[in-house]
Amino acid sequence: MTYSVAVSGASGYAGGEILRLLADHPDFEVRTVTAHSNAGQPLVAVQPHLRAYTHLTLQETTPEVLSGHDVVFLALPHGASGAVAAALPDDTLVIDCGADHRLESSTDWARFYGADHHGAWTYGVPELPRLSGTQRDRLAKTRRIAAPGCNASTVALSLAPGIRAGVIEEHDLVSVLAVGPSGAGKSLKAHLLGAEILGSANPYAVGGVHRHIPEIQQALRWAGADRPTISFTPVIVPMSRGILATSTARLVPGTDAAAVRRAWEDAYAGEPFVQLLPEGQFPKTADVVGANTALLGLAVDEQAGRVVVIAAVDNLVKGTAGAAVQSANIALGLTETTGLPVNGVAP
Amino acid sequence: MTYSVAVSGASGYAGGEILRLLADHPDFEVRTVTAHSNAGQPLVAVQPHLRAYTHLTLQETTPEVLSGHDVVFLALPHGASGAVAAALPDDTLVIDCGADHRLESSTDWARFYGADHHGAWTYGVPELPRLSGTQRDRLAKTRRIAAPGCNASTVALSLAPGIRAGVIEEHDLVSVLAVGPSGAGKSLKAHLLGAEILGSANPYAVGGVHRHIPEIQQALRWAGADRPTISFTPVIVPMSRGILATSTARLVPGTDAAAVRRAWEDAYAGEPFVQLLPEGQFPKTADVVGANTALLGLAVDEQAGRVVVIAAVDNLVKGTAGAAVQSANIALGLTETTGLPVNGVAP
Amino acid sequence: MTYSVAVSGASGYAGGEILRLLADHPDFEVRTVTAHSNAGQPLVAVQPHLRAYTHLTLQETTPEVLSGHDVVFLALPHGASGAVAAALPDDTLVIDCGADHRLESSTDWARFYGADHHGAWTYGVPELPRLSGTQRDRLAKTRRIAAPGCNASTVALSLAPGIRAGVIEEHDLVSVLAVGPSGAGKSLKAHLLGAEILGSANPYAVGGVHRHIPEIQQALRWAGADRPTISFTPVIVPMSRGILATSTARLVPGTDAAAVRRAWEDAYAGEPFVQLLPEGQFPKTADVVGANTALLGLAVDEQAGRVVVIAAVDNLVKGTAGAAVQSANIALGLTETTGLPVNGVAP
Amino acid sequence: MTYSVAVSGASGYAGGEILRLLADHPDFEVRTVTAHSNAGQPLVAVQPHLRAYTHLTLQETTPEVLSGHDVVFLALPHGASGAVAAALPDDTLVIDCGADHRLESSTDWARFYGADHHGAWTYGVPELPRLSGTQRDRLAKTRRIAAPGCNASTVALSLAPGIRAGVIEEHDLVSVLAVGPSGAGKSLKAHLLGAEILGSANPYAVGGVHRHIPEIQQALRWAGADRPTISFTPVIVPMSRGILATSTARLVPGTDAAAVRRAWEDAYAGEPFVQLLPEGQFPKTADVVGANTALLGLAVDEQAGRVVVIAAVDNLVKGTAGAAVQSANIALGLTETTGLPVNGVAP
Repeated sequence: MTYSVAVSGASGYAGGEILRLLADHPDFEVRTVTAHSNAGQPLVAVQPHLRAYTHLTLQETTPEVLSGHDVVFLALPHGASGAVAAALPDDTLVIDCGADHRLESSTDWARFYGADHHGAWTYGVPELPRLSGTQRDRLAKTRRIAAPGCNASTVALSLAPGIRAGVIEEHDLVSVLAVGPSGAGKSLKAHLLGAEILGSANPYAVGGVHRHIPEIQQALRWAGADRPTISFTPVIVPMSRGILATSTARLVPGTDAAAVRRAWEDAYAGEPFVQLLPEGQFPKTADVVGANTALLGLAVDEQAGRVVVIAAVDNLVKGTAGAAVQSANIALGLTETTGLPVNGVAP
Repeated sequence: MTYSVAVSGASGYAGGEILRLLADHPDFEVRTVTAHSNAGQPLVAVQPHLRAYTHLTLQETTPEVLSGHDVVFLALPHGASGAVAAALPDDTLVIDCGADHRLESSTDWARFYGADHHGAWTYGVPELPRLSGTQRDRLAKTRRIAAPGCNASTVALSLAPGIRAGVIEEHDLVSVLAVGPSGAGKSLKAHLLGAEILGSANPYAVGGVHRHIPEIQQALRWAGADRPTISFTPVIVPMSRGILATSTARLVPGTDAAAVRRAWEDAYAGEPFVQLLPEGQFPKTADVVGANTALLGLAVDEQAGRVVVIAAVDNLVKGTAGAAVQSANIALGLTETTGLPVNGVAP
Repeated sequence: MTYSVAVSGASGYAGGEILRLLADHPDFEVRTVTAHSNAGQPLVAVQPHLRAYTHLTLQETTPEVLSGHDVVFLALPHGASGAVAAALPDDTLVIDCGADHRLESSTDWARFYGADHHGAWTYGVPELPRLSGTQRDRLAKTRRIAAPGCNASTVALSLAPGIRAGVIEEHDLVSVLAVGPSGAGKSLKAHLLGAEILGSANPYAVGGVHRHIPEIQQALRWAGADRPTISFTPVIVPMSRGILATSTARLVPGTDAAAVRRAWEDAYAGEPFVQLLPEGQFPKTADVVGANTALLGLAVDEQAGRVVVIAAVDNLVKGTAGAAVQSANIALGLTETTGLPVNGVAP
Repeated sequence: MTYSVAVSGASGYAGGEILRLLADHPDFEVRTVTAHSNAGQPLVAVQPHLRAYTHLTLQETTPEVLSGHDVVFLALPHGASGAVAAALPDDTLVIDCGADHRLESSTDWARFYGADHHGAWTYGVPELPRLSGTQRDRLAKTRRIAAPGCNASTVALSLAPGIRAGVIEEHDLVSVLAVGPSGAGKSLKAHLLGAEILGSANPYAVGGVHRHIPEIQQALRWAGADRPTISFTPVIVPMSRGILATSTARLVPGTDAAAVRRAWEDAYAGEPFVQLLPEGQFPKTADVVGANTALLGLAVDEQAGRVVVIAAVDNLVKGTAGAAVQSANIALGLTETTGLPVNGVAP
């Protein structure tokens, strides 16, 4: 069967990327696209790269417009999806690409987002190792999916195998990310202007205040950590897309390098979209641009006593829209890889 | 008086930057420029941005050509400066921008560079805190200066104040750097091609093998560390110049945040070229492009138990050529800031 | 049926892009990939973004290795494809992505390339208007296809409709192109280094010496020009892919603006991959990155007496590999659009 | 003597660049900086690269604040400088970096800008050839200077020598420019966001509507043109600064190539900041980043019947702030080159 689909927030970067992926998906048909300030315009006037959708016009984002579809993707600003989602039928598959339904802990929510916790939906990173099985198992049985934060899922995929296998310590994790500005969305802020971004590397949310920190910790708890701590610093660099996450963790004393590598190999054996590169190889973000692929490279630095995991992800695909479509595939019982590119667009 | 100057390696990036700075230096006159494959060409044919030097022609790099100058800057490939330097008179001020004379430890040298250790010259980062005084004191009395590795000096300046003040632990330091490809020089390697660099973040020398690691450790020992360990990962990002180093260190238990900040404030009080930004502010590399300025931002992440220091440096200026000129100023008894830009070229 | 495919030059940019496109093509199966210096390595070691091909190893480029396939793509340096092609059976479909078989005129060849003209194959730009029909008609009946030069086809598609409709003059055409460095291939040349490309715009082949000029003129002659003249200047800008061609032509006196627009509308009506944007809209290269789409915008500048056509093309897709696959589809009688993306990867 | 200086619009890109240049100017002392929304903040909080100005605080932009200085630079949005300027004393040297006082023709003004023409001030491009002498002559006798539009002055410098020497035709000029987004100022517009700018080339104001067209025509009339016509297309490319202008003009029939080159050589002989490169050499924008230098390359394309002039300029320096300071030097009788960098910051 063909599932009818509505995409809200279709004028933004995440919404646009969902549409790009769905254009090649044989089981989904996008019938409705909605936006806020651009409602009334042809989709292609706002997203001129989406040539397959010249027939669609942006509508207002209301429950009425979104209702009546089998699948609804929400790519709305933080705080906007709760009310919309509440008005949709229970049997509609709803995937929220915003942060509203990612955190289980009300305390975490209150600390990093403030009021109005809406509760957690099933987290949309299928490959995440959990104490038992993977996150995939839960996605198979849900109609409410929270697509991940792009930075959070990249770091969680980087570190969770080591946590689950008991080869790295959960304390004192350190992640530094080179990220493209599309992760910040189409926001009109001075520090996101092209003239500011070009030729510069610019850190933000330094010192433990980034909202993806509790999301990472939550994923690591699922893998067996008790109270993981992480120093997390994103740095905006001049590439439109991409996350290159360098994550390091202290080796559990006495662990040998082979056991470390085996932890990641075992966690992602057979995974189509999360791949560990051979010893001595490390990914760059160009390898995964446009693809739903997360590439990992791993080294053990004996002198520093740390394992270093490099992860390359396209923030808009595996980090957001690809994770959403992959999770939707699972929830609907489709082949998980349907419609999802595995090759990057490089150079 | 005016000092006569020769610059070898004048066709490369470091050599070009030395020339750019010297063009505005009232006490230096560049009389001779040398190169290897480009010898015989007008300098401006190879370095078309150096319009002030239309009168100079590149000569061969030989001791004969370099002799007879008051000051000689060597910007040669690793391994090439030892022989040249040995043939220069003792009273000539020689500044080596290569790695050959940076490391005091023959063991470190053998491990990271291999054979033929040439011994260490005075390290050219004046502001580096040492157990007693700063590195500046040594530079005032030397005729042989080793300009720093750009990544090494950036990380050393980031962490040394905390080591000297005893507020951070010397073990388990972690630094991740976003760096521009000019740091790799004008090398014809496939991964340095524009099509590869653009739109991508690419790590290299992952897992404890980068040659700047012993150089960082050496500087930290000068600040009081015994056997510092550091996980160090550079990531090439698409900006021609610049280093954005994110360095983190465990807080010494019981240290309060104010004492941490004070350690860096004290270390760099009054320094013209190394400046700590106010609480809550962090630098970006665009702030320092073209300038001999290192900007630092500092945060204490209580939950992670780590201090985070962000440093922005132009790898070719404060990281190399500016450090060389600044050190030469000191060695010659000139005003330290002469000829050195403090403002960045932004945006 | 499934056609067996060999791709030579698989370690380069054009070869890599052919492989990326073929991975999503239902009728082609890539069995053999060849290279020169990288022969013996896994394809994915050289092209790490092509995750779908982890099973392939690069072989030597010889007629023996390439023989026995239904379709052979040649992505070799200029001058290398003639000999290889001559050794392949006549009924093998051979698509040459190099320049060797593009020009019909031996005089043009001698002037721009030198000796050893190999004769012309069917030119692989299906939408090109000819005095009668389009280039598509010829592609349906060939087993030898010359994929176009990326700059040449972009300019030809921009100007040919006006020539055929008689609304622009064939003399005194002017085209200036902003192009990404991937168009120059994976060549180890100093001016293609990332540090040189970043933050700079750099013209080359200025003043009528670029090899794509006779190729443009040839295409315009097919559209009805007699002896077209064009001032053609490419400028390398810091984007890995893409061509933004600004082409202008004198209006034939007395032509009204509506007739001008109609010439382009008529030429590309119904074309899936060459689209004229509505009045007042102009494309940017990000709209077509990764896509086989050429987007055109058109304005009539009455005061200057010129029509201005802006064209955005991905040099590696519609400019090379996409044109090759599209032409192969036609030659084999497949649906022309099979396996070819129409949506760009943006932002 | 030292001239006291006020800079309005100090929080923008043009204002920031004026301040960067003045920091190295021995005869000027910046006493006052003003802004609009950022008034009350330390200058360095908004312009963190201007480390030499940590002592200055942004004030409101009012005639009262600006009065009492010897020199006032206005770097305000279009339309804002007329009223401010009218309130300043006649003997204050006022340099307007906005467009308000650039055009002599009220008709041109009305057509491209609309109402409220404020009349023309002395145009601040000293090297522009005029029928008699250069623009420099007029600058020596003025207290009101209109700094040029960056694109306009780049094209005018490219073509005016050929007009004055009578070697190119004034009709049917064509200029296409690759420009960095800083030329658009710090405007919060979606198409100027980093994610949009990166990896893309984006034309704007296509088809004869750009406001710099009448400014170019005015400069060409000064060089002897009667009614020059020009097709002018700017393309935003991913570099923060820089203009690479490709300008072509029809050769006057019978003109030989040597006479063409001589026209430009003669026009700029001895000019410190406008330099014609030798035959066969062409500039790139990196050669002039941060410098007040305009580099030109010239080729005669016999087959196309056109001369091609490539010009590289830093839009913020020679295109705006450097032109302003250079013109101010002339107006005050200072050495024209004082405080102005001639070397670019490259790579």
